[in-house]
Amino acid sequence: MNTEWREDLGPLFQPETIAFIGASKSISKWGNIILSNILIGEFKGVVHPINPKEEWILGLKVHRSVLDIEGPVDLAMIVTPAKLAPDILKDCAKKGVKSAIVVPGGFSEEGEAGAALEKELARVAEAAGIRLVGPNTMGIFSGKKSLYALMPPVRPKPGPVAFVAQSGNLGTQLMSIGQEHEIGFSGFAASGNEAVLHCEDYLRYFGEDPDTKVVMAYIEGLDNGRSFIDIAKKVSREKPLVVFKGGITAAGMKAASSHTGALAGSEEIFNAAFRQTGAIRAANPKQMLDLAWALSELPLPRTNRVGVLTWGGGWGVVTADCCEKAGLEVAPLSKKTIEKIDKLLPPYWSRGNPIDLVGTLDRHNHIACLEALIADENVDSAIVLGVVGGATLITAQMETMQGAPAAVTAFVEAFEQMDRMIEEKMLELIDKYNKPIIGVALYESYRPYKTGKGRMIVLQEPHKAVNVLEQMFKYRQYLESIGVER
Amino acid sequence: MNTEWREDLGPLFQPETIAFIGASKSISKWGNIILSNILIGEFKGVVHPINPKEEWILGLKVHRSVLDIEGPVDLAMIVTPAKLAPDILKDCAKKGVKSAIVVPGGFSEEGEAGAALEKELARVAEAAGIRLVGPNTMGIFSGKKSLYALMPPVRPKPGPVAFVAQSGNLGTQLMSIGQEHEIGFSGFAASGNEAVLHCEDYLRYFGEDPDTKVVMAYIEGLDNGRSFIDIAKKVSREKPLVVFKGGITAAGMKAASSHTGALAGSEEIFNAAFRQTGAIRAANPKQMLDLAWALSELPLPRTNRVGVLTWGGGWGVVTADCCEKAGLEVAPLSKKTIEKIDKLLPPYWSRGNPIDLVGTLDRHNHIACLEALIADENVDSAIVLGVVGGATLITAQMETMQGAPAAVTAFVEAFEQMDRMIEEKMLELIDKYNKPIIGVALYESYRPYKTGKGRMIVLQEPHKAVNVLEQMFKYRQYLESIGVER
Repeated sequence: MNTEWREDLGPLFQPETIAFIGASKSISKWGNIILSNILIGEFKGVVHPINPKEEWILGLKVHRSVLDIEGPVDLAMIVTPAKLAPDILKDCAKKGVKSAIVVPGGFSEEGEAGAALEKELARVAEAAGIRLVGPNTMGIFSGKKSLYALMPPVRPKPGPVAFVAQSGNLGTQLMSIGQEHEIGFSGFAASGNEAVLHCEDYLRYFGEDPDTKVVMAYIEGLDNGRSFIDIAKKVSREKPLVVFKGGITAAGMKAASSHTGALAGSEEIFNAAFRQTGAIRAANPKQMLDLAWALSELPLPRTNRVGVLTWGGGWGVVTADCCEKAGLEVAPLSKKTIEKIDKLLPPYWSRGNPIDLVGTLDRHNHIACLEALIADENVDSAIVLGVVGGATLITAQMETMQGAPAAVTAFVEAFEQMDRMIEEKMLELIDKYNKPIIGVALYESYRPYKTGKGRMIVLQEPHKAVNVLEQMFKYRQYLESIGVER
Repeated sequence: MNTEWREDLGPLFQPETIAFIGASKSISKWGNIILSNILIGEFKGVVHPINPKEEWILGLKVHRSVLDIEGPVDLAMIVTPAKLAPDILKDCAKKGVKSAIVVPGGFSEEGEAGAALEKELARVAEAAGIRLVGPNTMGIFSGKKSLYALMPPVRPKPGPVAFVAQSGNLGTQLMSIGQEHEIGFSGFAASGNEAVLHCEDYLRYFGEDPDTKVVMAYIEGLDNGRSFIDIAKKVSREKPLVVFKGGITAAGMKAASSHTGALAGSEEIFNAAFRQTGAIRAANPKQMLDLAWALSELPLPRTNRVGVLTWGGGWGVVTADCCEKAGLEVAPLSKKTIEKIDKLLPPYWSRGNPIDLVGTLDRHNHIACLEALIADENVDSAIVLGVVGGATLITAQMETMQGAPAAVTAFVEAFEQMDRMIEEKMLELIDKYNKPIIGVALYESYRPYKTGKGRMIVLQEPHKAVNVLEQMFKYRQYLESIGVER
């Protein structure tokens, strides 16, 4: 059987025409909710709702069957009851539809009858070469086509990160957190029961996708460990692959009820396998987002030598501890750097790394210190604490004052302007020295500014910034070990 | 020399009258900023600004010297240049002032001359029995007196958590994060250079303070390790003491430049010492807040057996993994519980722990499932994922829709109402079964509702909830080991 079609997921992620089968007028039905999500998301293509009993849904002309649509159909989104899906898919095959997303549950996850239904679905899809997502999936997203074919109303902006999730709920919620932080996504797939397309198929596609700079995967179980290792190796040669694995303990595996192949088993086996692949292992789901965000925006650090700049002594201590524990070196400053900073800070400054700004208020000075630090030949990355995000606190507190005078408002505005300037300068320094700089702002409500140069990577706690630099450095070491220069 | 005065910090944390020495009219000076913070904070007492050159500052009559104030003065807040502080403190001694906060830097942290100045300051304070905070401190907070005697405009609400910080910057920023989460504080001290009052003095006071339910400490170095151990032991017998230690690696210790006594040294030595004391060790500064919040609101779990209820399968897997790694048991459900839930969920539910709500939408049902779980004799605590905080996502997304119809707005409101009901019921279950329940909502912008029953503890990631339960359980074990029932 020709299976090359599996490798080309273009019809799925870049469809021109979608048949939305099971469209509904009722706003409490998925056939309406998902269709709304697609329309509100401004899909760059044509959607044909299919429903044998309606004429118009959400302002679109309804067809009775996929077979009634004129012209080719790239993707069928199937939101009918499970038992109807195989027959609908047969119509799709007849029509020459190249890909399908089968949303409903009621297949192998619900016992033997469901498993038989799923087998039938897979048989039809594979005979016709239909790239089938699911069944039992929360859907997909495509940045290029602005296609939000998802159950929840999650609308991350398009961007460089692709994401494959073996849990639709966890996957879409992480996308939504990514949206809160304005992390851009190129594509997303909730792989569902993986009757036809498997986790690895999406990874391969995103690995080759020129719009994707970083690939993220939430994995619970793999049917074919060998194939995963091969594909993961290929992907991480080209771009970072960040993986979080669920189900690594007996309790977790029981929860996942995963019937997996070679890779199933203890964390140690996974660790070893992942190490071979060059994939980057996240310690928790949110860390996967931090890593993907940083890896998509920053150059890799050349060595493990970090410079720390802090507006508060305590945070410098905490960060230095985190660095040493993570195998990063809080590098000694060169004589030249110390001389430069002697001219910038009061005489009692630390004269070492971390550089404590000892409460100085001149923000231009902060940037001058940062430039001295990142220019240092001993330093290949920097973590900057407290220097960004300052206005958030001031603003929040000023809002609690009744009738704040104009002078205070002007003060807050000046502070914000300064923060924006600081972040823009930091982005310039990253470009100028080709070394990663990560900001740490401690307020959860803080979001970095959009500047002409883009947006700074700002995380919320020192250990998060350290973890990201550690993993970036290890990824660079991996690339060197396989002879790839980046 | 009589040193009993050290043990009574009442004049410092519950002053009736404050002399604010170094008050200023200029809004860019600390002598104005801190005074504003005290006035805006609505201090329940009298403040006398002191400045030899002014008559009125911020609407208050100014005195030329502390000696000109009629009646007793409990606390002198000194915000003058460092070199004036010893003479000012001598006036305070003459006046019979019982406590002082010396804000300026320029003492032992700035070389030999500063160290001599600090020695002189300490000599005056100790001879007169003045409880002196600092020098080089960001100030203190007292919940009972609504006293925000702090450099930054941080205004957490009063409540059950006390906090001692050996870094003012880190301390006040954590307070500000606590404020974001509406965690209440009974007291706070940035201990500064600790010329007179040491970290342990504050710990002892908060340990005995009836308004304080949990004590938090950020520690960099201890002059007297033995005294810390003794006091920490006493405190943690009465109430939880949560500690984060900065400066546990060579890099961190260098950053802290801490010249500490017996307790200085590697993490292992600290671990051993802390274990003796029953103090709870946080892995990072924010975790200290999570722990203090939970410990101040929830009953301790009787055993390590956890029940997990989740609205999304993937998060259940992640949580089960975290539990097992932390030594918590994802407990098997009793037959009775399974029978109860058989009546509540579709037949294909997991029939085990974690309980996956398999996408059911009836929120009353969620609460019924939670009650079945927490009532189970095998289960002594619960983590509930995704069931709280749902409206946040919906609301955020609806705001992105232009001209959302009234039906949609009503839908969001209904969702919020339901969320509020859910959280109130959860609080009822905690009381009814006297077992801790922690919610996990994945959106960073989410904050739990204020209900008639208070506010649910809701953390942002599964591993945070697991860590809190793990530490609570260990604390209970410690109490049992020393024969204390709680």
